[in-house]
Parts: sequence; C-alpha cells; structure tokens
Amino acid sequence: MIKISDKFDSGNISVLAASDPMDIRLEIKKDRNSDFFQWFHFQVQAKSFQELKMKITNVSKSAYVPGWEDYKVVASYDRKEWFRIPGTTFNGSELTIEHTMEHDSMFFAYFAPYSFERHLDLLSTSQMDKRCELIQLGETLDGRDISLLKIGEDDPSKKKVWMIARQHPGESMAEWFVEGFLERLLDGNESLALKALEHAVFYIVPNMNPDGAFRGHLRTNANGANLNREWQTPTLENSPEVFHVRAKMDEVGVDIFLDIHGDENLPYNFLAGSEGNLSYTDEIKRLEDMFKESFLETSPDFQTEFGYDIDEKGEGNMTVACNAIGDRFNCLSYTLEMPFKDNANLPNVKYGWSDQRSKVLGRDILNPIFTVLKNL
Amino acid sequence: MIKISDKFDSGNISVLAASDPMDIRLEIKKDRNSDFFQWFHFQVQAKSFQELKMKITNVSKSAYVPGWEDYKVVASYDRKEWFRIPGTTFNGSELTIEHTMEHDSMFFAYFAPYSFERHLDLLSTSQMDKRCELIQLGETLDGRDISLLKIGEDDPSKKKVWMIARQHPGESMAEWFVEGFLERLLDGNESLALKALEHAVFYIVPNMNPDGAFRGHLRTNANGANLNREWQTPTLENSPEVFHVRAKMDEVGVDIFLDIHGDENLPYNFLAGSEGNLSYTDEIKRLEDMFKESFLETSPDFQTEFGYDIDEKGEGNMTVACNAIGDRFNCLSYTLEMPFKDNANLPNVKYGWSDQRSKVLGRDILNPIFTVLKNL
Amino acid sequence: MIKISDKFDSGNISVLAASDPMDIRLEIKKDRNSDFFQWFHFQVQAKSFQELKMKITNVSKSAYVPGWEDYKVVASYDRKEWFRIPGTTFNGSELTIEHTMEHDSMFFAYFAPYSFERHLDLLSTSQMDKRCELIQLGETLDGRDISLLKIGEDDPSKKKVWMIARQHPGESMAEWFVEGFLERLLDGNESLALKALEHAVFYIVPNMNPDGAFRGHLRTNANGANLNREWQTPTLENSPEVFHVRAKMDEVGVDIFLDIHGDENLPYNFLAGSEGNLSYTDEIKRLEDMFKESFLETSPDFQTEFGYDIDEKGEGNMTVACNAIGDRFNCLSYTLEMPFKDNANLPNVKYGWSDQRSKVLGRDILNPIFTVLKNL
Amino acid sequence: MIKISDKFDSGNISVLAASDPMDIRLEIKKDRNSDFFQWFHFQVQAKSFQELKMKITNVSKSAYVPGWEDYKVVASYDRKEWFRIPGTTFNGSELTIEHTMEHDSMFFAYFAPYSFERHLDLLSTSQMDKRCELIQLGETLDGRDISLLKIGEDDPSKKKVWMIARQHPGESMAEWFVEGFLERLLDGNESLALKALEHAVFYIVPNMNPDGAFRGHLRTNANGANLNREWQTPTLENSPEVFHVRAKMDEVGVDIFLDIHGDENLPYNFLAGSEGNLSYTDEIKRLEDMFKESFLETSPDFQTEFGYDIDEKGEGNMTVACNAIGDRFNCLSYTLEMPFKDNANLPNVKYGWSDQRSKVLGRDILNPIFTVLKNL
Repeated sequence: MIKISDKFDSGNISVLAASDPMDIRLEIKKDRNSDFFQWFHFQVQAKSFQELKMKITNVSKSAYVPGWEDYKVVASYDRKEWFRIPGTTFNGSELTIEHTMEHDSMFFAYFAPYSFERHLDLLSTSQMDKRCELIQLGETLDGRDISLLKIGEDDPSKKKVWMIARQHPGESMAEWFVEGFLERLLDGNESLALKALEHAVFYIVPNMNPDGAFRGHLRTNANGANLNREWQTPTLENSPEVFHVRAKMDEVGVDIFLDIHGDENLPYNFLAGSEGNLSYTDEIKRLEDMFKESFLETSPDFQTEFGYDIDEKGEGNMTVACNAIGDRFNCLSYTLEMPFKDNANLPNVKYGWSDQRSKVLGRDILNPIFTVLKNL
Repeated sequence: MIKISDKFDSGNISVLAASDPMDIRLEIKKDRNSDFFQWFHFQVQAKSFQELKMKITNVSKSAYVPGWEDYKVVASYDRKEWFRIPGTTFNGSELTIEHTMEHDSMFFAYFAPYSFERHLDLLSTSQMDKRCELIQLGETLDGRDISLLKIGEDDPSKKKVWMIARQHPGESMAEWFVEGFLERLLDGNESLALKALEHAVFYIVPNMNPDGAFRGHLRTNANGANLNREWQTPTLENSPEVFHVRAKMDEVGVDIFLDIHGDENLPYNFLAGSEGNLSYTDEIKRLEDMFKESFLETSPDFQTEFGYDIDEKGEGNMTVACNAIGDRFNCLSYTLEMPFKDNANLPNVKYGWSDQRSKVLGRDILNPIFTVLKNL
Repeated sequence: MIKISDKFDSGNISVLAASDPMDIRLEIKKDRNSDFFQWFHFQVQAKSFQELKMKITNVSKSAYVPGWEDYKVVASYDRKEWFRIPGTTFNGSELTIEHTMEHDSMFFAYFAPYSFERHLDLLSTSQMDKRCELIQLGETLDGRDISLLKIGEDDPSKKKVWMIARQHPGESMAEWFVEGFLERLLDGNESLALKALEHAVFYIVPNMNPDGAFRGHLRTNANGANLNREWQTPTLENSPEVFHVRAKMDEVGVDIFLDIHGDENLPYNFLAGSEGNLSYTDEIKRLEDMFKESFLETSPDFQTEFGYDIDEKGEGNMTVACNAIGDRFNCLSYTLEMPFKDNANLPNVKYGWSDQRSKVLGRDILNPIFTVLKNL
Repeated sequence: MIKISDKFDSGNISVLAASDPMDIRLEIKKDRNSDFFQWFHFQVQAKSFQELKMKITNVSKSAYVPGWEDYKVVASYDRKEWFRIPGTTFNGSELTIEHTMEHDSMFFAYFAPYSFERHLDLLSTSQMDKRCELIQLGETLDGRDISLLKIGEDDPSKKKVWMIARQHPGESMAEWFVEGFLERLLDGNESLALKALEHAVFYIVPNMNPDGAFRGHLRTNANGANLNREWQTPTLENSPEVFHVRAKMDEVGVDIFLDIHGDENLPYNFLAGSEGNLSYTDEIKRLEDMFKESFLETSPDFQTEFGYDIDEKGEGNMTVACNAIGDRFNCLSYTLEMPFKDNANLPNVKYGWSDQRSKVLGRDILNPIFTVLKNL
C-alpha cells in the first residue's frame, strides 16, 4: 500500500490516485490566493524495493514550464542527504518520476527543503555570537516573526550590506546560501570575514517569507502576494514582510543590496542588476563590474554569460526589490539567481545543484562583497 | 522592546501585557475543544542583558496545579541545550519567571520540546536500518501519519513488545525516551539489543498524538480527545490514533506493553500497572515484579517507593491504555511516568529532569524488557 | 610496487619478501628481551585494486598458536573503521591473508590499535571533568608516565574500585574497554554512574604498559617483563609499572579489582577469579557470584560457560595481579578476558569482536560493579 | 608535586629543576647532530589551580633569538584547543611562563603540534577519495615513509602543482595548512577545487620531515641535515627526503612550486620568491605578481609589506628548495611563511596565529593557485 503525505513543513501535493504504484497521479497545489505553483514536497511510504511510477499531471500549467525540461527531482531517505532521481522525465505535459524505493519512506521535493525549525535554529545559534544581534521587525500575516540578523558593531564610517533571501519561498536554496554565508561571516578564523566586519555592518534576512515557506508556496506570502513585486508600495495588509524590511532599510541605509533567489529555468548561477533604473550610474556600473569580476575569480560556479536580458534604461520594473532598492539608495543592487536544475558549467550527476553547493556559493560571495567594500 | 511569540511547532502562549519587561503577563491557551492546559512554549526576544519578570497568570486553573510547586521552567538560547531557570516561583496562583537574558532570544517551555521535524527525522533515520520497517497505520484528524516502527524479523516464536509514547502530547520527554531506546535497539554493537531482537519483535509508536504535539496541547488530540481515555471504544471520528494502533495490536498481538508518559506532579520516575483489572493474574504480577526488580538494578533513576495509588481489583479505569491493553492481551502492561520537575532521588540543579536523562532512561529500559522476555 | 611498513605507534612486522604481491612473506618480531610474539600491525601500500596474498610465516612459533585457528585479521583503510578480512586462513604453520586492496593504503593489525596519542587524549579529556584527577605514579623504563585517573571525591565511607588495563600491551581491546567505561562513568546523565560515585572512588589505569604498547609488543614491557607475573615482587628495575601501581593500592586500599585483558584463543568474554588463593573466602565467592549474575543480566556478550580452568585452593599463581591483589586486599578480584576472535555467542561476520563492542562491554560492566558496591 | 614530560610525539624539553613550582627551570634540547633548537613541547602535571613559574633558560642560544620577542607560548588542556599563555615574557635571556593550571595536566608547545598519528590519518582519509593516489617515494633515515598525495587524473594538457610542507619539522603550522588545503581540494562541493583539478594535477607532500617532527626537532632530519639546504645535491645518506622528492619532480615535472614554512620572527604571513636565480624571468615575475595580487584579494591574512629581503639576481642560495626548484623547472616557485607569533595585521589575543587559522589560509591559497593556473 502506498501512502503519500504532505502534512509537514513546506509540504505540497495533491494525490489524484495512488492505488497502483505504477500509476500514481499527483498535482501540485496553487499558492493560496494565487495561480502560481511549482514547488512540491511530499513523502512516499511504500514497501522497500517497491518500484514506483509517479506523474505530476499539472506541471504544464505551472509558473515556469521550461523549468521542467532537463530537471531531475530531489529526494532523500534520511532527510539529510538530498540527491537527484535519474528517472525523472518531462514530456511537455507531465513530469514522470520512476524510482525503486530502497527503504520504506522517501521524501521528494523540488529542491532540498529548509524548514522553519532549521530557520529558528539558524537564528538562535547565530545570535549566540556576541557580534550578532537578532532583531524582529514585525509580523507576517500568519503571525510569524520577520527576523533580521545584524552583524558587526555600529560605526559611522561603516558601510551597510543587506542580504535578503527567499522572497519566493519555494526557492529554498536561498536560505541554504545564507546559512553558508553566515557560517563564514561568524567564523573567527576567517580573515576575510574579520576584515569585512571592519568595513561594514551586515543586515541579513534569512527568510523574507516564512509563511509562504511553511505553507509550501512557490512564490507568494500567506495572502498570495508576490513579495518581489511589492517594493514600490508595500502595505501592512498585503506585504508586511516588505513593508517592515524597507522601513528598517530607510532607518539604517543601504550601500550594497543582495537579494537571493532561485531560477526555475536557467542551469546557471547569475546576477541581475538594476540597469533599467533611471538612477543607474556609471559609478554603480563600475562597482557592479568589480563585483562580477571578483566573483568570477572566486567561484567557477558563478558565470556572466547566461542570465536575464538587461533592461533598457528607464524600463526597469520598480516594484522589484533589486530595482527599487538600487534606486532608493543609489547603491549596488543585485538579484542573485541559483538553479533548480544543475550548473551546466560544472554538472554533478548525483546531486545537481544542491543545498551543499548553495552553502559554498554563500561562503564565496563574501569575496566580491569585500572587494567592493574596499572600493566604496 | 519585548517580542513574545508562539508561532512555531508546539508553541503555546497568550500575551496579556509585554510593554514593561518587569511586568510581562502571559496565559497558557487551552487545548482545542478542551479545558486542559499546562504545556507552554514561547520565544522571548529582547535586548541582551535585559532583565525580565514574566508571570503566567492562569496556572492556578491549569490541569495539575500541584505540578507548579517546586517546578523550574526549562529554557534555551540555542535550542539545543535546555536548562532550568532558577528564578521560577509559584505563589499558588501565578508562576513567576525572573531571568536576565544573556542573548537577544530565548525559548521557554514546560519541558524540552520534541518537534514534528525531529519526529520525521527519527522515523527516517530509523528506517534506514534494514531490520526496521516504517508502517503507517492511518491518519490523524489533522491529516498527519500515525507512524509505527516495527523492528525485528517475524518469527512465530517471538514475543511482541509494544511501546507507545506521547498520547499526551505535552509530555515531550516521552519521545526523547523513545529516541534513546531506538538508538540502543538499533546499535549493532549493543549485545542486549541484538539478543532482545532474537526474542522479540518491537512495535514502537514514537508519537501517538502528532496533532496535539504540533498544536502545543498538553493532553488532547486535535478534537480535544484525551487519547488515554479512548482505549475501550476508540472511534475514527474522535480518536483515530487509538483506533488504528489498537487494530494493529489486534492483528499482531501484544506480550509486553509500555505506555510512556510524563507526570506533572511527582518528582520521580515510576511505573503504574494494571492491578485494577479483573483479569490481572499472579503470573502478570510475577512478571511485573521481575520487570521492576530488573529496572531498579539497572537504573537508579527508577524507583518504586513513590507513584500512583494502586487500584483495587475490578476498579481499574478500562478506558486507559495500560488497563485496556493489559486486559485485552492478558499481558504485562505498564504506564511509565517521568517527571516534569526533577528526580528528587538524584537531583540536578542545572537541568532538572531533562531530554538527555530521558534518553538514558529509554536506553536503560531495554534491560528489564530483556529480563522479562527471557522469562516469558 | 608493494611497500610494507611498521614504523609507527605499535607497528610490528618484518618483511621477508614483498616483490611479488601474490607471495608476500612476513614475520612477527619478538617482544624485546623476550620470546613472546603474536601482536602485529603494519601498513601495506600498493595500487588500488591490487590483489594481495600475504603469509605470516612464523605464527606456529608464536605465543598462542591456537589463537590463529578461526582468527580473521583486522584491517582498515581510514584508520577509523576496523573490520575483519574474510580471506584469512591458518594451515597450522602459516597465517595467510588474501585481500584485494580497494585503496592505495591499508593497515592490518591483530586487533584495532589504541595509540599512545589516543591514550594521551583519553587522559586529557577525562581530567577536564572536575570530578576526575590525573595522577602520575612514576615512570616506565622508556620514560613514559604511569598514569592513574582517580574519579570521585574522597570519603571514608566510600569503597575503592580499581581497574587496570593492558598489562599485556598487545591486548588493545582492554584500553577500548576502559574508554567506554570512562565515557559512561563521566556522563552526568547516567544515573548508574552518578550513584556509583556516591558509593565508591574509582582508580583507573587505562594503560599499564605504554612502553610495550608503543613498541608493538604482545606481552611484555620495554625490558621483556611480563607484568602480569610481577605482582609478588615488582621492582623498579624490571617492572616499575607494577611497583608504582601496587604502592598506590597499598596507600589507598582496594575493595574491587578488575584487570582487563584479551585472550588469544577463546571466542568468548569471561572472568577469571582468585579461587586458587588460600585467602579466598565464601564472602568473596558470594560477591563474585553476585557480580557474575549481574553481568550476565546486563550483557549477553558476557558468559560463564567457557573460561579458564579454576585453580585448586592454594594453587593460584601469586605473581598474577588477580591473585596477588585478591590476596593482598582480601577483595573481589577479577581478570576480564575479551576475545581477539569473535564472540561465538553473538558472532559478527563483518567486525568480529571489535573496538566498538569492547567499548560497549566497558560501559556495561558498571552494572555489576554497582550491584556489588551496594552489597559491600 | 610537579611532573614534566616530553616522552611523546614531538616532545622536547629537559628539566633542570622542578621541585619548586614557582622556580621551574627548563632547557630545549638541540636537534640531533645539530646546534639548532627552538621547538619545545612538553606536558606539565600538577594539582589543579597550581600556580606555575617556568623558565626556559637557554633560549638566548636558540636558533632565532628575536623569535622570543612578543612571543606567547601555546598550550592546551584537552589537546584539541590550543591557546596562548598571556603570562609569557622574554627578558633577552630567558623565556618565562607564568600560569595557574585549571586542571591537573597541560601541554605546552612552541606551536600547536601535528602528530605522526594525525599525519597517517590525513594520508589515510585523503586516499579514500578516488581522485587521490597515495604514493610512497622512499624511506627516511629512521625508516618512515616519504609520502606523496597525487590528486587529479593525468592528462598531457594539465599543469603540475607541487606543495611540500614541514621541511623544518618544528614548523607544524605547515601541516595544518596542508590539511586545510586538502579538505578544500577534495570537497566535491567546492567549485574552485573542481575547476582547478581540470587544469592541474596536484602533488602534495604533507610532511617532508617526519623523523624530525617525531623527534621534536626544530629544523633538521634524523641526521641533523637542514633539508632546505639540500636541494642542490641531496643524498640518500644525508637527505633522502629531498633526494626522493626531487627525483619524482624530475619524473613528472613542476609548473608551480609551493614550500610551506613557519617563520620564528616576523608576525606576518608572506611569500619569498626566487628573484636571486639567474634563470628568473619576467614571465615568472608576471606570474608571481598575479599570484600575490590574487592572494591579497583572497585573504587579509596575507600581505606583501613585510617579508625577507629580496636577493639580487645571481645571489640566490641554490641549496634552498624555492630557488633550486624555480631554477630547475623554470617555474613559479615560492616559500610561504606563517608566523609562530600572531598576524600583527589581524591579531587574535586568545589564539595568536593558530592551527585553525593556518587551515583557513591553506584553504585560501587555492584561489591564487587557480588564478595562475588559468594563465599558464
């Protein structure tokens, strides 16, 4: 007998049929009050060595259909090691997962999940460092805290570096990335971290959208708001997450802004800037070039060949965080995108792009940040 | 500014007033559809070195008022190490917690929590052992799995040992106890475990009440049912947890039954048997005496001086698991109680009775189980 | 090309021929100033996937020839996990080891080694516990410390429990056993340890013979003395290890004495007492029976069916620690023997009797110690 | 009573007087067949809370007298965490160590030791990676292996990167550095490591001088040879370590050569090149500038302001590895020096320059190596 469940943190699946292990049919649920869907996360319980054939039947109506091409599902028996399922295929309308269970239970997900419990652990252990302050900015619509980690002692000469992650809650790699970044920033043996903290104070929001994350959403908060379209006019009613974070930015300022995301389609890590802003300057371009060059030097997992089309000046969507914050603070402002698939420049057949590789990239981004900091 | 939150796994608190750190007033919420309440779990965020005085104002109406006498609140900064707050006092009507925060955030709870995420981790890692089968028996009212771990290969000659925990979800020590028991039972270097598995198959339900646990209940499931009063006539509508577990027991049989609990009042570990059953026999008494004697030899954390009054024959409450199962299967049947306070025979000022000590007791109970198994 | 080395802690091998991987011939070196030999420990470096056939050609002249029957060599690639080589055979004159290397380097040994570095780590971490005192009693002939761990606060009412290990340095399981015992004794969550420390002070010598251990000896110290034949008249010149330990015993007294060993021949764990002593009493026998009964209850890895022949009263060898100390202090006095082979009652094809199982047995022996302590 | 011992791996001290804890007098032993001495490593056993005053009386005759200025002794209770002793003073003739013991035993050393056992563990775990080959090149005078780790698959297009460490055995930071480097190079999630292995094969000698290291030498091998003066005419009789390594270099070639050291005097990390070679070219200078620039970008623990005087062309000492190998292979060739003291640019009062910081620098050096590899 097959049992399929999504009744846990970030779970998302509807079971259409599960009586025949070779003809399991599933659907991804829409984000609440929204038509977006793509994130899934469910547990299958069967007999060990049960052969399974599962179809997710509504992927052709999901948010990013090209995201399913060449995509391999992520799975884990022990909820620690998440690997790819080779028997994943997409025929244009359905995603088929063929797999023989080696144990009685297996979790499947769009990407390695990052739970709210782990989020609270991350905040709690980080704040044990005396250089780190845990600040709550306000509440989400479901009543969770909007939590900010401030790292480094205040000093008028210091720059303000902001990093936010997981506006889109299904992009769980973003919080793995932050975990890697924090581990390095708070490691007293890391000279780059020690020096960076002489130049800057860091403001880090590990999860901008804890409600959406817990609910198993792809892209929106509890009310169906796509937070990354709320930065022009955030409201307490619809997007308190953005409202409170932007208010804190107004209070302390922003010199470098990094917004961490995952991209469903492109099999690469890349940055997207705010070239579409009317306020975009040569000086910002100079800093961005410096940032990219340093990042290229630091991490072969980063590249600049593939990415989003660059907006023409004046055509930037000012509701998007990167543009809005770049404009508001006249600063270097980037969206970082990591793949749901693999990094085609450095493919890993077993894991694809993964939680662990996201952490390493999070460590590595400190290098370009520091390079720019020295030149601000 | 003080922020108090319970919006997480097993969180439970209502904030009446938190504007003055020296006059914070809180209430514990009732279990849903029930008047029981005693479990609490909340996060306080303040400035480091903030002095706090918090009162839980409704404890005199809670389920077990004597439970607050000599009780010290459990707390943690890092959510790993849970220790007691010495500045806990009970004046007969309010529980007062006086504490100076050493960091920005601290979690307070009635006992070290055991989250649903950790529960899923426990099931997932246990099932990696090829001797362990993960079986789902049915669904709770909130839709969570009722999960059973079956350990050991079937053989007609083998006895069936059942252990269930956390019928009362606020008694989180019960699942820590099971975690310790499982670690030993599945350790290939533990000769007692290897031999026990030659004599018996183990059926273990680490959490009988995942809904109540997640909801921050003390004693009931999602519908307000006290599961340990449902064993005579469990129903799918009100107590599916008991319904499904008892059905599985009917299918496979029971030779030893252990129901793991926490006691709010007595500062001791103790067992309660089924002497009130009409079916209670001298043979069961002989086995129980053997069990107790072996447990006393094994663990000084166990004792037999203090405990519940023993029912007169025929006066046992047959809705209680211990009596119902003892009667139904004519077997050794015990409720194990661990303290929320400390073990007065072996007090630990820093930790009181704790998650870690519960795990050790869980390891130790394998000894009396094995002693009885050899004599069944 | 094959390279075979023993130039490291407890290394012991002579290479007769190693040019042909299928005809490697080796000899075990004698203990210095002694004819004893049986312990071996060497590293083989070859190409990965190299098939090897190695013969130890002098085993028929070793100390315990029956020890090679049914014996399987212990080996490790990573020096952490030590497992058995199935392709071990003994034809009455040579021990043949057939194995295909999965990596470039592999360590082979008579049993999982316990290095002097690990010994210093064990002493150093143990002494961090404020209940533990590290005492140096004197020096070995090579100049190493004879180190004693004293655990527990002095009190006139308390008994003195002595445990010594590795008089015979090649019996490395004895120090793994002590490591397991110490981990439990110093674990603040272990109720049995806490209570035992209310009844007794523990005096533990984790390694009686660090010179022999480092030199790769089977049985003797740097001067060729078999320490377990030195307890009647130890001298600073020949057996300072025994001289100093016995002197400390005379100073503080002994109520329980345990001498931890490995046995080359018998595939069982067993105890040997001091029945051959003229001073052996019914009271000692009563305590010994209690100890054995409790140990049997605690650990199925222990048994009493197989063991050494019991001496007739008055025929005990009084140079042996167990007899000498039993007589000198009129106390319960035991030699504990663990197998180099496997425990035939609970065989483990992959590991045989192992470092990890020795640690578990070391944990378990606290139970019979405590049982006797309560009755002294 | 005070007991001072050096009878263990890399131990080095002579006790002149230890009867008065406030007047302990010690001497460092010379390297065998040599006048060099500076490395020390010893264990002090006393009562907890014993105040100690120890003088090392012969430091004014040691190899690098200015090394004692502003130097703080390294020490550890548990042999895991090594920290500085603030009460270290140098008056021009004696080094005085004032410290109150918090436990019974403490190890003191010139720098955090790296034992031969840990060396074997490093080799053994590294070779478990299928990309890593463990090669033994020959034997030292004491009979230890001269071990080489080769990492990466052969390919005619690939460059050869050589890293050797600990020619001077007392410079233990060099092997910590290699450990950090290896951890990163073999981490499958590190993109820079994966890409570097597409460009190069790495040849790493974690310890050039295991005899000297084990013997507690500062600078020489078992025969008193300073290996870093043996590269012009190494001999099997006097310097087999250099003889065998250079022979392997001749066999496979060298494109980048890094020789890892510690410097007694300067409180900085720095590189020393082969500018004194007649064969030194503009192309090598270009690569070296690129290397240094990249290293500066990567690690604030590296700097170029302080270092050794640069040789005039033609005045290089051709017996030194850096010069000899740079000349022989016409390649980028560097000596890396780390401090025994602290990094004055980023001081750490508690640890000074440390084992852990050496590991981080070892990780970081992969960046400049990769930068140069891309440009070779």
